[in-house]
Amino acid sequence: MKKVKPSYEILSKIDGEEILKSIEVAGRTCYKSEERITKGSAEKFVQMIINRNHVSVIEHEKITVKFIFDRGISHEMVRHRLCSFSQESTRYCNYTKDKFSNEITVIDISDHVKTWNAEKVWKNAMNDAERHYNRLIELGESPQIARSVLPNSLKTEIVVTANLREWRLIFKLRTSSAAHPQIREVMTPLYEELKGRIPVIFDDLTIQ
Amino acid sequence: MKKVKPSYEILSKIDGEEILKSIEVAGRTCYKSEERITKGSAEKFVQMIINRNHVSVIEHEKITVKFIFDRGISHEMVRHRLCSFSQESTRYCNYTKDKFSNEITVIDISDHVKTWNAEKVWKNAMNDAERHYNRLIELGESPQIARSVLPNSLKTEIVVTANLREWRLIFKLRTSSAAHPQIREVMTPLYEELKGRIPVIFDDLTIQ
Amino acid sequence: MKKVKPSYEILSKIDGEEILKSIEVAGRTCYKSEERITKGSAEKFVQMIINRNHVSVIEHEKITVKFIFDRGISHEMVRHRLCSFSQESTRYCNYTKDKFSNEITVIDISDHVKTWNAEKVWKNAMNDAERHYNRLIELGESPQIARSVLPNSLKTEIVVTANLREWRLIFKLRTSSAAHPQIREVMTPLYEELKGRIPVIFDDLTIQ
Amino acid sequence: MKKVKPSYEILSKIDGEEILKSIEVAGRTCYKSEERITKGSAEKFVQMIINRNHVSVIEHEKITVKFIFDRGISHEMVRHRLCSFSQESTRYCNYTKDKFSNEITVIDISDHVKTWNAEKVWKNAMNDAERHYNRLIELGESPQIARSVLPNSLKTEIVVTANLREWRLIFKLRTSSAAHPQIREVMTPLYEELKGRIPVIFDDLTIQ
Repeated sequence: MKKVKPSYEILSKIDGEEILKSIEVAGRTCYKSEERITKGSAEKFVQMIINRNHVSVIEHEKITVKFIFDRGISHEMVRHRLCSFSQESTRYCNYTKDKFSNEITVIDISDHVKTWNAEKVWKNAMNDAERHYNRLIELGESPQIARSVLPNSLKTEIVVTANLREWRLIFKLRTSSAAHPQIREVMTPLYEELKGRIPVIFDDLTIQ
Repeated sequence: MKKVKPSYEILSKIDGEEILKSIEVAGRTCYKSEERITKGSAEKFVQMIINRNHVSVIEHEKITVKFIFDRGISHEMVRHRLCSFSQESTRYCNYTKDKFSNEITVIDISDHVKTWNAEKVWKNAMNDAERHYNRLIELGESPQIARSVLPNSLKTEIVVTANLREWRLIFKLRTSSAAHPQIREVMTPLYEELKGRIPVIFDDLTIQ
Repeated sequence: MKKVKPSYEILSKIDGEEILKSIEVAGRTCYKSEERITKGSAEKFVQMIINRNHVSVIEHEKITVKFIFDRGISHEMVRHRLCSFSQESTRYCNYTKDKFSNEITVIDISDHVKTWNAEKVWKNAMNDAERHYNRLIELGESPQIARSVLPNSLKTEIVVTANLREWRLIFKLRTSSAAHPQIREVMTPLYEELKGRIPVIFDDLTIQ
Repeated sequence: MKKVKPSYEILSKIDGEEILKSIEVAGRTCYKSEERITKGSAEKFVQMIINRNHVSVIEHEKITVKFIFDRGISHEMVRHRLCSFSQESTRYCNYTKDKFSNEITVIDISDHVKTWNAEKVWKNAMNDAERHYNRLIELGESPQIARSVLPNSLKTEIVVTANLREWRLIFKLRTSSAAHPQIREVMTPLYEELKGRIPVIFDDLTIQ
């Protein structure tokens, strides 16, 4: 068993200036006001668009992020309809193979449990699950059957592509105090990073 | 631990005749051919619509089905974008509570394993997971943390609403020989039942 | 030329009690609290769901409405992604045919113009368009080419199916003071009617 | 009145190699086969993905195109749910303003009519519509009311962003012999251009 923390990696090259320009071109098509495009006009235009809640215009630009979290969290993530997902498959990955060093990787729970005892129980659970999985593969079962014993803490990797409007919704829902602590743990810093890189798109959101 | 088989229950009242009539009314709006509606015209009209692949028209009617299968299978199900889902929550359900009789329910794997030994390993895995879960709750962890040790075989209940066009797609993908055996186990009889009840909607699909 | 007012007709049979019960069944699946279902519990449950903004649960029920408005308004309508549409086709309808009495039907603009003169200009425009359309058909052009001269005021019929969550969004956007007067003219009474029939679903919306 | 031909302009910078690499990274996440990424592996990987119909993976990359066609054609375009659109607004554009040189722009129909006479009728229709529109504005009506008399041939500009999987669907539907001649006129060369730039994504499609 190997423990990792939940994390994200932005796969898109983000050029904030280019993104705003591209949104401005799309948005000014609505008003046929392309003649007002000047050096520096994009940011003001996008600000205006967001203030007026004409947010369909920011759908023209997308950001792709790779997340590492547990299977339970990924279940919430994939409920967003206007995203695209490619996720590590428990049907096709065989965790007893060399490339997995014969061990399953799980998302470290230690920051979220209340006691050392709980962490110990969880560790035992992970080791038990791993032992059972390995045994099932050894007995000739396919990964898609052996996965039955894998725990919810199993690490999963998922590439998520969403447009900027959808990212705003994701951040609103997934950084909320009602969200699961693990998804907040990864969405809050992602939100902060993206806000830093394209402030006008994200800085009006109130994150709890 | 309690074992159950995957299953489905159709929650919608399905009146095939009413469904076809309603589709005919929608579809004839496109051609303004409402004057051709007669007793018995609906079935022929819908047949023609499907033959021409003008399948957006059958989106006006929906069917709601409650499924019981494992968490892994539900992960595939919720990737369909044009469906609506309400799923048993591992964040809010506490499986040590009275109403769960202090035991977790899992989806029986016995039809899909190759050997008695494998089934035995799986049973041990389920019992271990249950023991660890109960212990975590006992130690004061919330269900949304304790769920970390729950296995992929955990039974989940999910209410799925989809329009008839989407159900056609679901059956095409989820009864295929490339699909997971457990999802085929539940989708194939559902497909057969719905084909029996509204043949014209489903009988041109080739199910492997 | 024939003038009609924009209008709607609810095609679904709406049984408010059945709708709420069905939502309750779906929603209680999330919490596994089906044992709390009693006579009269549905309305309170749905109220709680909406108060908590757990609105995905109300997606399981849909309402189908047939609208009559102009082509411009229909263009706004079809931008809602989670709806299904069947619309009168200007490619396939030949408005010189008997069933159209050789005349085009347009949406009456008189309530929205400021002066009698404007109404007169509009009437002339409709008559001119009709004459040009008829002439093109006479010259052997197909409806899909002849439609080029048809005006934005052309009456269109469109059957719209949306789930209850989406109807909430439609009413929020399309009854707003920022919306086009014609779409408000038809959406406001539809909203009032549906609110009367299933209050708990709609009565928290603030309509301008 | 000013006549233009339907046309498209690709707004995205398309770097075929980068696009395939990005898809490979997403797709290999499913199989955890990132170690097989080599110079030149992306194209083969994407080919395999498409052969297996695992096309959700190509959703991670998008292309933005600006189209110029008539209002009728745009009505078909916006029915694609998984696209994003920004379209010239007949509510907010005032075609009597300087920037429109006091004239409406329409999509030239001459390639699609059968006779000179039909073209002449159409020209008269366009001139009539323009005159009526200008008069309504002169009488103090707002653009969103005056648009009532604008013809279906009115030129519209629309920025369309879709992922690669959706573009495949668009090309399949909109280059078909069942599609409107005007949408085929613009989609067929766009398809050919994109196939030339990223062959592996598009070259298995059979275009009629």
